[in-house]
Amino acid sequence: MALSRWEELVQEKRERQRSSIPPEWIIPSVTRGLTNVLEVPSTCGLLSDKELEITGTSDASTILDKLATGQWSSVEVTTAFAKRAIIAHQLTNCLTEIFIDKALDRARELDEYLKQHGKVIGPLHGLPVSLKDQFWIKGLEATMGYVDWIGKYATEDAAVVKGLLEQGAVLYVKTNVPQTLMWGETHNNIFGRTLNPFNTSTTPGGSSGGEGALLAMHGSVLGVGTDVGGSIRNPSHFNGIFGMKPTSHRIPTYGLANSLDGQESIATIAGPMSTSLSGIKVFMKSILDTKPWLKDPNTIGKPWDENAYQLSDHGEGKQLCFGVIWDDGIFKPHPPVIRALQTIKQALEKAGHKVIDWVPYKHSELCANARSIFLSDGGADYQAALTSGEPMINSMKIDADPSDIPLFRRPREPLSAYQLWQLHKERRELRKEYFDRWQSTASITGTGRPVDAILAPVSPYAAVPHGEKRGAVYTIIWNTLDCPALVIPVTTVDADRDVKQPPHEFRSPDDKAIYELYEPSTFDGLPVGVQLVGYRHEEEATIGMGEIVVKALSDI
Amino acid sequence: MALSRWEELVQEKRERQRSSIPPEWIIPSVTRGLTNVLEVPSTCGLLSDKELEITGTSDASTILDKLATGQWSSVEVTTAFAKRAIIAHQLTNCLTEIFIDKALDRARELDEYLKQHGKVIGPLHGLPVSLKDQFWIKGLEATMGYVDWIGKYATEDAAVVKGLLEQGAVLYVKTNVPQTLMWGETHNNIFGRTLNPFNTSTTPGGSSGGEGALLAMHGSVLGVGTDVGGSIRNPSHFNGIFGMKPTSHRIPTYGLANSLDGQESIATIAGPMSTSLSGIKVFMKSILDTKPWLKDPNTIGKPWDENAYQLSDHGEGKQLCFGVIWDDGIFKPHPPVIRALQTIKQALEKAGHKVIDWVPYKHSELCANARSIFLSDGGADYQAALTSGEPMINSMKIDADPSDIPLFRRPREPLSAYQLWQLHKERRELRKEYFDRWQSTASITGTGRPVDAILAPVSPYAAVPHGEKRGAVYTIIWNTLDCPALVIPVTTVDADRDVKQPPHEFRSPDDKAIYELYEPSTFDGLPVGVQLVGYRHEEEATIGMGEIVVKALSDI
Repeated sequence: MALSRWEELVQEKRERQRSSIPPEWIIPSVTRGLTNVLEVPSTCGLLSDKELEITGTSDASTILDKLATGQWSSVEVTTAFAKRAIIAHQLTNCLTEIFIDKALDRARELDEYLKQHGKVIGPLHGLPVSLKDQFWIKGLEATMGYVDWIGKYATEDAAVVKGLLEQGAVLYVKTNVPQTLMWGETHNNIFGRTLNPFNTSTTPGGSSGGEGALLAMHGSVLGVGTDVGGSIRNPSHFNGIFGMKPTSHRIPTYGLANSLDGQESIATIAGPMSTSLSGIKVFMKSILDTKPWLKDPNTIGKPWDENAYQLSDHGEGKQLCFGVIWDDGIFKPHPPVIRALQTIKQALEKAGHKVIDWVPYKHSELCANARSIFLSDGGADYQAALTSGEPMINSMKIDADPSDIPLFRRPREPLSAYQLWQLHKERRELRKEYFDRWQSTASITGTGRPVDAILAPVSPYAAVPHGEKRGAVYTIIWNTLDCPALVIPVTTVDADRDVKQPPHEFRSPDDKAIYELYEPSTFDGLPVGVQLVGYRHEEEATIGMGEIVVKALSDI
Repeated sequence: MALSRWEELVQEKRERQRSSIPPEWIIPSVTRGLTNVLEVPSTCGLLSDKELEITGTSDASTILDKLATGQWSSVEVTTAFAKRAIIAHQLTNCLTEIFIDKALDRARELDEYLKQHGKVIGPLHGLPVSLKDQFWIKGLEATMGYVDWIGKYATEDAAVVKGLLEQGAVLYVKTNVPQTLMWGETHNNIFGRTLNPFNTSTTPGGSSGGEGALLAMHGSVLGVGTDVGGSIRNPSHFNGIFGMKPTSHRIPTYGLANSLDGQESIATIAGPMSTSLSGIKVFMKSILDTKPWLKDPNTIGKPWDENAYQLSDHGEGKQLCFGVIWDDGIFKPHPPVIRALQTIKQALEKAGHKVIDWVPYKHSELCANARSIFLSDGGADYQAALTSGEPMINSMKIDADPSDIPLFRRPREPLSAYQLWQLHKERRELRKEYFDRWQSTASITGTGRPVDAILAPVSPYAAVPHGEKRGAVYTIIWNTLDCPALVIPVTTVDADRDVKQPPHEFRSPDDKAIYELYEPSTFDGLPVGVQLVGYRHEEEATIGMGEIVVKALSDI
């Protein structure tokens, strides 16, 4: 049967992608039957011992130190991560644009610079950094999985790309996203579906799902994602990595292909995803040090604040008080998610900090407000990008019934600008009430301060089978409230310990479905992260407190 | 003829206002025939010599010093300004809520505190501060001139009010605004029309026109206005005072009655208006020092930056380079406005700074974008506040023809949320292009930096006769671009020097009308200010550079 025009375009684009992969980096197809593919890079024979040493280093700052001192060259490090990224791609389908030659040219220049000048060009000198497909890189496409956008080449680097390059980063791959971006899984008609390397029958999450899978495979130690409802955080959680959603307009977003572009009520933010907290920190500080507000007119002129990072507003971190959200009253978390929170609580208490319960407040309303905003165009934005004839993807299930549209995706009547204004008023009041409650905890923490940060699930579950991801209620509220939220990997599901609980009183069909989804054996071994949520614009303090949490966990 | 219900409500409200004025502060009606009423406070006999000394002091920091050292008590200072405000009100109709007793109670408490503790409670200790009618003060109305809102008493203080009180301010009066706020003049069906004290046949501007008139009369030295298109700046210019529109979300706006409430595309900002630049500075620093982001969920967590104020990013202010907008190509400024800019240029050059021409870029598009946003509800917001039967005010002319609606006020078809998103995309690109141009001036300034700040007209004219104010093109673009803009009073119209120029090629009927409006004799003696525009979030540096401009002007 002849292909339709849009299918031809996809075929041609996929061919171009295939040809961007060095043929000598193709791995034997025998590895393809595995469900947990994490060990393939070590066993497939493609990576040398040194390349395994380099890519086996989770800590971004360790790699940066070795690059800065010339112990590892950027060409070595870039080659190692590029190879491993290509391996990851063959196992999880995590990449979109692949440009290894360009990366190696850049790496050579950086090595030359270091040799000639005896110093780095910036704190990210020589480090390969992966990017979600959305970010413009001059001369490359940013299709975002829309067939309509094939062949549109960026004429300028995104502001964050400019910042990364200024600070010495090497760019080498971009990563996969779901069609429309507004989905917590990763699948589109151009590049297809991305798989979770811990269990390929589950989703890596989304929309920064390609980043999630790539980082879990150690095909990158530092990537950049975006988040408007959980798109950095749920893939971080599903893939056992760190990820940070900053407050809006802290990290520049100019130069992004985007969904619902122009929707500013709840801004799309850009932020780091990393195998280490040091990766999160070095990204945030490096980008802020480039004065991104001079490159992006919507970015706030607020430099990295070292005192804030040292927790000057949080008693120098000596005795912190955390509030824990155990259950938001909408979706009851699965047992391993609760255990992850308990683990952190114990660790923090052992380290001398306080941990109190945080009572959820109007989380349903906060979610509903965001959803109304995201759906306020009645689907016009999606339709404008689907003129090629490619079908809208309405379900992420394998062999999905196209009419099976999840609740959070069902189109609504378009709203007027005036109706949107009313949602802004509602959101302002919700925010005010939430933050007033936060401030009022000063009377119960015993520290003299309000709760320093909030600990919360990222999601009620670990990675779910393809098509089973439901509304992002635990993440989206921090977009409505516009707080920085850092995902910290805590544990993995342990089928023996995380036994199924007796049924609770279900709050909704979705809540029931989530309860029924949990079987310890099917989730066994999947990563579980937790959100650490700071006050608005407290990115530095949130990272500083994140370090305290990580240390406490390692000291258990 | 019997009054309609809305007219009865107005009558009752006006009666309450009248009864809030101490009868002994009523001035003889003989003064009412004057057009320039600035001298009446000195001549009417109501103020003692000391009260004239106090209220004759323009410099806010001088008054604050005398309050802090106990040379002047807060009761003395508050009484003096309250009296003078009441005089101003009788001449210009500038006030809405008047609460002198409450103010004096507060002043007594502050005096007592200083006596007991030997120190001030904050940097605004004892200073009377006036507020535009919008700001909530617990227990008072904030009708904003809408009959519908009579009798709605605030149950909470606005965030900025809380900050002022924490820092020691005394609140005593609120000031008049135009119906709907979206007008550069000041007239509504409850309180009527506010007059310009320099010439009562002209407008004090708007929408913070009550503040403008009050400050010009020295009935206050520090007031708080709001600005979404010029509403702080044009009354500052028309009344010969300082006024600052900060970047959005720097000063808290929670707790405002507002027009187009929920419209966030171009945010309403709150900012200071003052008889001195020291008043602007002390307000900004005092409010930021109270961490307003803990009181208002939309305020940025960005403290006062003393280094930025000391011009650390502007060569410590040693040799600055300013760009001047002489004419935006839309409305040609009147001769005194051009002379004001020439005066500043000469003063700055004499002081060793550089002044280059700034070529306007897409100012029409920046204006059109803002206007489309403001009118995107098709008038729904106004209508929702006009259910009492009070008529919409469509012209500010005296004895106006109700069908004579100025161009900028004509209703448009409502937009959808999706259409609003397209305007956001357009605005983002306009901003990007404008700021890229700004950055690119680094190659021509000779300082190694881009232009440090921009000097521009506030308006093509000084205060115009009632009803003659047209589109706010010189101010509104800085709302679209979201830059801090400080109005500095420079000169007054001089009929002998500011002669009418031969006609230019008119760009529009409005441009022609503006040209024709200028007759030196009718504008003689009216104040002329200039905008000093800084980069986004550079409030501190803009004030620092403002001080350099003021010093240069005083050294001519």
